[in-house]
Amino acid sequence: MNASTAPRKTVLSGVRPTGPLHLGNYVGALRNWIRLQDIYNCYYSIVPWHALSSEYANSKAITGWTFEVAVDWLSVGLDPDKCVMFLQSEVKEHAELHLLLSMITPLPWLERVPTYKEQLKELQEKELNTYGFLGYPVLQAADIAVYKADLVPVGEDQAAHVELTREIVRRFNRIFGPVFPEPQTLLTEVPRLAGTDGRKMSKSYGNAVYLKDSAETIRQKIMPMVTDTRRIRRTDPGEPNDCPVFTLYKAFVPKDKQDEIAVGCRTAGIGCRDCKGVLLEHLFRFLEPVWESRRRFEEHPENIWEILEAGNVKARTKAQAVMAEVREALGF
Amino acid sequence: MNASTAPRKTVLSGVRPTGPLHLGNYVGALRNWIRLQDIYNCYYSIVPWHALSSEYANSKAITGWTFEVAVDWLSVGLDPDKCVMFLQSEVKEHAELHLLLSMITPLPWLERVPTYKEQLKELQEKELNTYGFLGYPVLQAADIAVYKADLVPVGEDQAAHVELTREIVRRFNRIFGPVFPEPQTLLTEVPRLAGTDGRKMSKSYGNAVYLKDSAETIRQKIMPMVTDTRRIRRTDPGEPNDCPVFTLYKAFVPKDKQDEIAVGCRTAGIGCRDCKGVLLEHLFRFLEPVWESRRRFEEHPENIWEILEAGNVKARTKAQAVMAEVREALGF
Repeated sequence: MNASTAPRKTVLSGVRPTGPLHLGNYVGALRNWIRLQDIYNCYYSIVPWHALSSEYANSKAITGWTFEVAVDWLSVGLDPDKCVMFLQSEVKEHAELHLLLSMITPLPWLERVPTYKEQLKELQEKELNTYGFLGYPVLQAADIAVYKADLVPVGEDQAAHVELTREIVRRFNRIFGPVFPEPQTLLTEVPRLAGTDGRKMSKSYGNAVYLKDSAETIRQKIMPMVTDTRRIRRTDPGEPNDCPVFTLYKAFVPKDKQDEIAVGCRTAGIGCRDCKGVLLEHLFRFLEPVWESRRRFEEHPENIWEILEAGNVKARTKAQAVMAEVREALGF
Repeated sequence: MNASTAPRKTVLSGVRPTGPLHLGNYVGALRNWIRLQDIYNCYYSIVPWHALSSEYANSKAITGWTFEVAVDWLSVGLDPDKCVMFLQSEVKEHAELHLLLSMITPLPWLERVPTYKEQLKELQEKELNTYGFLGYPVLQAADIAVYKADLVPVGEDQAAHVELTREIVRRFNRIFGPVFPEPQTLLTEVPRLAGTDGRKMSKSYGNAVYLKDSAETIRQKIMPMVTDTRRIRRTDPGEPNDCPVFTLYKAFVPKDKQDEIAVGCRTAGIGCRDCKGVLLEHLFRFLEPVWESRRRFEEHPENIWEILEAGNVKARTKAQAVMAEVREALGF
């Protein structure tokens, strides 16, 4: 078979709609997704049922968050002509396959997921000791398998979940017959992006810069941002690799400019305030077309829902075909 | 509101398709269901997804068992013009609601279900320590709630499951708003029906008399059946209330004949062999129209699937309307 006629592999990834996306989400996932949509059959899913597993008490906010995520996606360059953008909760086959996979997933596999007990502890105030929260990886397995996805782009921290999907899929294939490919992780080097307090940028830490933030908001977040603690005075030299601000440089500033600033930092040739000014310039250069795009989409919110609905139809078609195979394998 | 115009209450019950039905299933459930179909809006469901929870290794047999159950139902007198007979696995809304309810069902509620740990032990060879087996009561809750069922006819042993459904439904209503009625158990006095070895009649004990058994087969099962152990010799008197055969009398023989035989037993006026002969007469009197009806249905198996498909359509219509309310309550 000629390489150009080999069937494209299928990619599946998803985002929980629990609020607007930030620069960390862009650098950690979206930037890669945009590249992948030219190479693979990409299914990008907003996953309200997963959001519900921790946010059931805020369920009425989820639709608004879904809209935010869709606007973020479109404005950074995910293209509904190149990928399938859709809503998990509009494709019931996810729920059906989740139920079927639940019947063959040993309980200890779920109880042993490293992130499970951590999260139960971390999010104690949310009463997450539910059946659905324990079954999170089963739903993820269904999300992936229902499109027969070959590749799942994830960061290091999610690799264990994809491994569990592979185990569940293997068990399904062994019991019922070979239906699903074993999905591979598409490990992307995710540079650590620091938030305003120096910890990893994360919505739950309240230290995030959002794609939708205005220039003024971003300036107010970046200017007081923590830097290398050795630079107490303007004349103290610093180490860029120990500076949270420099993680943003690495993501948004061209290499030659990064190098120039690194030298300035190490020689105390540039102060933190000026360094942040240069960063803001480059951040705004990246964000201006994003904001422009967002304005166009926000003027016609009905378009967003239409784009998602068109994606839902495509996703349903594929998922229904796969479920027909699943039912045949089960003998249903 | 005039009593005659009060809306009929909705009844939901289901059977796991794990093989043909026996006299115990008839006496314990079907006989009551036939009565209920004249009084309520009855949804009677064959539940392959539940069958899968313990029979996943035999999934390919489930469709055949489904057919058996449907023929049993129709031949004893369940009437598709009076009730909705349908297949759970053809109404995806069960899976969708199951997933949603899983998000709000505390894990300890499931771990504490009295039958759960018992069954895990009893059925060790089946590897039931799965996520789905633990979640069995969540799927039952979805089965019931997705039709807004008011009443669930169950025996004593299932009452705890309906109570759990009530708790899950209450929690849903409290978090998302009042969507579901709290289903009530319709406790039916289920006379204990003994199998051929004297234990409760049960497929898993291999002691059952099936509705589909031929007269000859039934004769071969009943004649050697255990009786009151005090009747060692023909001349020893017995106590009918201690005799497994008499449990069948209570279910299938008119009261006056029961009384006559009881006297005969207590006075040793009748031997066990003759007593069983009288029982067989009455059993055959009950079963002859059932067999006749079965023959007609088995001649046209396609009719069975058509009847179920028509039921699926009715069930789906109702379930989709309820799920529209559910999504509205969630804000989805």
